[in-house]
Order: sequence, then C-alpha cells, then structure tokens
Amino acid sequence: MAVHQIGEGGLVMYWVTFGLMAFSALAFAVMTFTRPLNKRSHGYITLAIVTIAAIAYYAMAASGGKALVSNPDGNLRDIYYARYIDWFFTTPLLLLDIILLTGIPIGVTLWIVLADVAMIMLGLFGALSTNSYRWGYYGVSCAFFFVVLWGLFFPGAKGARARGGQVPGLYFGLAGYLALLWFGYPIVWGLAEGSDYISVTAEAASYAGLDIAAKVVFGWAVMLSHPLIARNQTDGSLLINSTNDPFVASTTHIPERQGGIFGGLMGKKRGAGTPLATNEGVPRKAAPTAATTTAGNPATAAEV
Amino acid sequence: MAVHQIGEGGLVMYWVTFGLMAFSALAFAVMTFTRPLNKRSHGYITLAIVTIAAIAYYAMAASGGKALVSNPDGNLRDIYYARYIDWFFTTPLLLLDIILLTGIPIGVTLWIVLADVAMIMLGLFGALSTNSYRWGYYGVSCAFFFVVLWGLFFPGAKGARARGGQVPGLYFGLAGYLALLWFGYPIVWGLAEGSDYISVTAEAASYAGLDIAAKVVFGWAVMLSHPLIARNQTDGSLLINSTNDPFVASTTHIPERQGGIFGGLMGKKRGAGTPLATNEGVPRKAAPTAATTTAGNPATAAEV
Amino acid sequence: MAVHQIGEGGLVMYWVTFGLMAFSALAFAVMTFTRPLNKRSHGYITLAIVTIAAIAYYAMAASGGKALVSNPDGNLRDIYYARYIDWFFTTPLLLLDIILLTGIPIGVTLWIVLADVAMIMLGLFGALSTNSYRWGYYGVSCAFFFVVLWGLFFPGAKGARARGGQVPGLYFGLAGYLALLWFGYPIVWGLAEGSDYISVTAEAASYAGLDIAAKVVFGWAVMLSHPLIARNQTDGSLLINSTNDPFVASTTHIPERQGGIFGGLMGKKRGAGTPLATNEGVPRKAAPTAATTTAGNPATAAEV
Repeated sequence: MAVHQIGEGGLVMYWVTFGLMAFSALAFAVMTFTRPLNKRSHGYITLAIVTIAAIAYYAMAASGGKALVSNPDGNLRDIYYARYIDWFFTTPLLLLDIILLTGIPIGVTLWIVLADVAMIMLGLFGALSTNSYRWGYYGVSCAFFFVVLWGLFFPGAKGARARGGQVPGLYFGLAGYLALLWFGYPIVWGLAEGSDYISVTAEAASYAGLDIAAKVVFGWAVMLSHPLIARNQTDGSLLINSTNDPFVASTTHIPERQGGIFGGLMGKKRGAGTPLATNEGVPRKAAPTAATTTAGNPATAAEV
Repeated sequence: MAVHQIGEGGLVMYWVTFGLMAFSALAFAVMTFTRPLNKRSHGYITLAIVTIAAIAYYAMAASGGKALVSNPDGNLRDIYYARYIDWFFTTPLLLLDIILLTGIPIGVTLWIVLADVAMIMLGLFGALSTNSYRWGYYGVSCAFFFVVLWGLFFPGAKGARARGGQVPGLYFGLAGYLALLWFGYPIVWGLAEGSDYISVTAEAASYAGLDIAAKVVFGWAVMLSHPLIARNQTDGSLLINSTNDPFVASTTHIPERQGGIFGGLMGKKRGAGTPLATNEGVPRKAAPTAATTTAGNPATAAEV
Repeated sequence: MAVHQIGEGGLVMYWVTFGLMAFSALAFAVMTFTRPLNKRSHGYITLAIVTIAAIAYYAMAASGGKALVSNPDGNLRDIYYARYIDWFFTTPLLLLDIILLTGIPIGVTLWIVLADVAMIMLGLFGALSTNSYRWGYYGVSCAFFFVVLWGLFFPGAKGARARGGQVPGLYFGLAGYLALLWFGYPIVWGLAEGSDYISVTAEAASYAGLDIAAKVVFGWAVMLSHPLIARNQTDGSLLINSTNDPFVASTTHIPERQGGIFGGLMGKKRGAGTPLATNEGVPRKAAPTAATTTAGNPATAAEV
C-alpha cells in the first residue's frame, strides 16, 4: 500500500499561487476602496475571490486542509479538501461577476449558481469517497457543469444581447474565457482525485495553474476593464448606495434604481428612477419601470 | 463492545430511496422548466428538495456520509450525519413551500425557519454525542420542533385564513400532512441514534420511509397541485421576473408586485401594482399598497 | 509528550456560562415576543446570539465540540472548535445589533461583516494548525480585526453622527464596549490555542468571561435600552412588517419604509413613506426619498 503525498514542487506551487492571490487581493482592495461608492460591486466580488483563494492556498502550503483518503486501488492519497471550500465560495462569485452584466431574471441567476454549488460539492464528495462510487459523484458533477454552461450561454447570452451596447462583447469575452478554463478542472480531477493516476504534486501544479488563470488573470481582467464594467454593471450602485436608513440614503444623491440580486439582498431606495445615470451608453431597450411610475407625475420626477 | 453497522436491507432501502428521489428530481426539473417564468417558484423549491435528498441517499448508499460513534452503553454505532446535512437544507425548503402561501410577515417566516434549523442541528449534535448529554440536545431539539409547529398553526394558519379563497384548504392540507409526518423523526431518533435500541438497518428503513413520504409524496402533491398553488402563491412571479437590470426587467411585462421573502431576496420591479394578475381568485382582503400609491395618480396607473 | 485537556474548573465555567446564556435566551424570547411586531428586530438578533452561545456552551460542557490537536512543542492540546462555530454566527449578529443603528450603506455593512467572518475563520484555522504557520493565520486574523474596527469607527461612526439625535450616544456606547472587549480574544488566543502557554482550564475561563461580557451583559444592555433602540432603529419595522403577500401586508397599517439590510432581505412594502413614524425623535437630515416620491402627489399621501 503506497501513500501518495505532495512533494516539494507542489508546495512551492502552493506558495507561489498564494503569493499571487495575496498580492492581487491587496491590489484589488486598494483599487476598490478608492473607487466611488457606486462603482464598487465588481471590485468587492473580485476582491473576495482572490482573498478566499489566498487563504486556501496558505492553508495548503502550510500542509493543512488535507486528509489521507484510501483509494479503490488500495493506496492512500492526500486529498486537499481546502480547495473545494475555496471553490464553494469563489465559483459562485466568479459567475456573479459576469452574470450581473446580463440582467437576466434572478430566478435564472439562482439556478445557475445552485448548479455550480452542486457541481463543487459533488466533486468534494467524490474526492472523499473511498470506493468506486466516486465516479457517480463525478458524473453528476459534470452534468451540473453542463447546466452551468447552458445557463451562461443560453439565458445568460440572451440577457447580454438584450442589454446591447458594450455588454455582449464584455460578457462573451469573460464567460467564454471562464467556461473554457473550467473544462480543465474535471480533467485534472479524473486523473488525480479520481483515478489516483497523476501524483499529488502534479495535481497541485495543475489546479494551481488553473486557479491562477481563472482567478488572478480573470480578476485583473475584470479590475482593469473596470470603467467599462462599472458603466455597464446592473447592480453596483445598489450594492453600495442602499442604506439601512432613508435619511442617510437620501444624502448620497444616487438616482433610485430597480432591484437585482444585490438590490434585493441589500435593499434599495424607492421612487423615481433615472437608470441612465448608472448605465451611460446602454441603449434603452424599454422605458424603465421606475420612471414609468412617476411619468404621470412630473412634480415628483422634478423633485428628485 | 459491539459495533452496530448497516445491513444489506438498509443499503437496499437507501438505493430505492435514492432512485425515487432522483426520478422525482428529473421529473420535477422537466415540469418546472416547461412552466412560464412567473409560475416556477414552488417548482424550484420542490426540485431542490428532492435533488439534495437524492445526493444524500446516494452518499449513504455508497457507504459514505457516516461515522462510528461510541454510545454510553459502550457500543459503537454508525451515525449517518449525511441525513442531517440533507435535512439542514431540505426542511427549511419544505417549510417555505407552504409558508409562502400564507403571506405572513417575513420576521415570522424567519424565526420559524431558524427554529427548524436549530431543531436539525441539535439532532445532529445529539447523534454525534458520545455520552448521555445527547438527551439534552434531543430535548431542546424537540422544543424547537414545537416552536415550528406553533409557527405553522398559529401565525401561519392566521395568514392562510387571511388570504382566503383556496389558500386555507391548500395550506392546512400540506402543513397538516408535513407536521404529522415530522412527529415520526424524533421517535426514530430516540430509538436509533438516541438509545441505540433498534438496528442501523431498521433506522435506515424508518428514516427512508419518512423521507419518501415527506419529500417524494409531498413533492408530487405540490407539483401536481401546481395550477392551484401557482394561482395562489405570493412570490412566484417575483422570484422569476425580477432581474438584475430594469431594461431587461421592463420587457417581461409582468405587473409589479410587493416584496416577500423571494421578492426581498431577489429584488423586484417597482411602481404600480396589479397583484390580481398573479392572484386570480384570491379575494382582496384590502387594497394592495402598491395600487394605493398610484391610486391618486390615474395617469401612472394608466401607463402600466 | 503532554496532553493538555480541561480541568473540573473549566467545565464548571462552561456550565455557568451555559446557564447564563440559556436564562438570557428565555428572558429575551419573552421580552421579544411580547413586543409589537414592528419593534422586534433587535430582540430577534440578540435572542439569536444568546441562543447560539447557549448551545455552544452546552456542547463544550458536555465534553463535545473539541479535538486534540498537536502543537509545535510536541504536546497535544484540546481545541474547542465549537466556540468558533458559535462566533462565526454570533459576532456578525453582534455587529448588526449596532450597525443597524447607523444607516450606513449596505455595501459597507457587508464588508465589515465579511471581515469579521474572515477574522473568526482564520482564528479557527490557526487553532487547528499543527505547526507554526498558525501564527500566519493569527496575524491576518488580527489584520481583519482592525478592518472591522475601522468599519465601526469610521464609516459606522459617520453614519451614526449623520442620524443624530440619540443615535451617536447609543452607537458609541455599544460599539466602544464591544470593541474594547474584542481585544481580549486575540490575547487569550495567543496564550492558549496559539502558544499552548496557559492551561485549557484558564483558556475556558477567560473565553467564558469575555463571552459573558460580550453577549450576556451586552445583550441585556441592548434589550433593556429597547425603547431607545426601537425608536432609533432603522430596520425593525421592515423586518417584521414586510410580508409574502401584499393583501396581508396592507392590513398591518405600517407606513411604508425604505430598504436596508433587513428591508432588502425581507422584502418590504412599497409606495408612500412616512419614516418619522418609526423614527420619532430623529431629526431629519434630508427629505426621505420615499416621501419625496409622493410629495408631488398629495392625493397619494393622503390615502395612506
């Protein structure tokens, strides 16, 4: 019975990846907190992604976040469950980073994110499974991956096109890059946690490479294309400007907007809306509802 | 010292239950995704319930999701913690399936769900406890069960009656069935995890039977009485139609509605409201607020 | 190799703390549920805090919720992970209890709470770490503590001052007390889980003392200053009065209000707003948006 554990090279990869994630976290924090309050939503999301990944990589580099699991072949292999905890939180955030550009119905955003969470959890269960049933988890996890892809490229793409302007280009660029990268994970899983075919060091290096591309590179792309995203984002202003108190809220001078996943989660200000203020350059596909409600009431619109 | 583990019969029960849950999940998915966007909320909830249960039963059937825990009597017994993780997510969803019919204040919905979660967690802690203090967890867990029942049959019932129409019949039918079934769980717990009196196989069969009745049978009842539920649900349209972006939102042509747990979680569209559109057949108990806000402003109402 | 475990005195402290938490939970439940529906938010939060802590202390007193972890010095020490699960839920609630008084933007409330959660999780990872990398977790955890303090005393303080009236006094009293106490935790951690310098019994007594001051004493302070808090809270009415159904909602006769973390989470009623009704004594810093939207429409305002 062999015991497969990580080698020096794998730990080096963990430290390098930790360094990149931590550096990006510090940089993204500075970039985000120096932005106007109503232009931070994508910064917050991207900052959370690299921060969580930095902690996970520190844990793995510090020889934590793993457990010896026996394989059907009778060998013991170190399974790094820490990366699944990382992915549980970061993959939904990565999806939000792009889905929030589409303005698709929240019900759809919800099932895409839940399919993603199921995909990750099944990958973890399969990795911790000591028998061949692990492949059952794997198969269903892959099925959920296709549900996520379907959500990104059918309803998601439809929403992006509906918003028009610079959104489709931005959305397809980010979503396509992410989707392509994500195909790498199930391949590594099959060779590493799944079949115990490649070494734990090779596994560590492969996942690290994928995470750097999917979080650091993707993160910098999102942060650097910030002006473009901020101009086209659907929720940024809501996330930041809605407050616990109308008195304070009304002093921030941000035009009211409609809900959205953040709007809903965060509460938002009511009344007359001039969404153009937070959507410059986005061609109106229809009159915003909020505006409609006050259209018959010039006095109100005038006051805001 | 005896080691109590599951027998062949128990694993068969797990596989059978997995099959029923998985089949229901596929069926519910088809039923839900072929429904109009504003009639899916109960479908999503019920689909999530059987999907989570299917995964948990697969895990237990695959000899996972369990741990050997020593009993005060000195024996070791396999404790299936996987079922508690299942229940942690599915019992609140089961409650939501019925509570969303009542329109009770969200604060009340919240404490009912939190009491339910406490009930499940205390059951898990008790099951993992190696000494007689397990009965302390058990007692408080039962106390929280009565808090849940109180919530369902006092504020919940009051809300259902207040909505009138077909809601009370629907609510009392589903809530009564669920409440009755739920009495079975603490009984099995006391005989199985609690006192180590019945075998792990008998425990598996008992819980499986209860889960089939509370999730598969209940789920089909909810899915098949869909037209009735959809017509009376308070949040379905909000869950689906609210979007991340007013421009897209305003193209879905769904009349604005008020909040609600989904409305709040998901964000919703603003302005004039004609709730009747999503509440046909529900006698108005009072003029909907949204309508009130525009009543003094015919121009607005006219425009929507 | 020494094995450091808890002594009789430590267990006694756990039982005493459990008793105080449980008694407070029962008292707070009575106090909260006998209050009007629109004055319960702080009661719910504070009740949840002591209830969760009571369960955690019961678990530790019942010799559960712990694991033997090896130290760099080669000794084994019992690590009570149960207290971190407690803190994971209770520290964000403690922060909400005070932040909800400030009406600061939700985006800010969000990053304060996330920094707090990161602080707790890193403390747990450090406590479970078997090597000296634990001090890395500790250092970053302390860094997140300062992020929390920054949030409380810069944006938080700004928001409290902006609301004026009795809010600043209330906020600085509670926030100052909490912040001062929280400095005690990293000190104990460094001596106990960190360096294995003080005994597990001394650790238990120290944390118990801090928890009693930060949850029982703080909780009673919040519950007894209820009239003051209820009059100044920003979300209480929303939490309770928003419903799943406009028909029921409109029968509760609570003036509409703007969002907020609870408003957003819970959904809320629309339209004309007279926030003064839930903010007596709070000088208006600006015209509330909701009111603004109807100001031009006396007919509407009149109807509500």
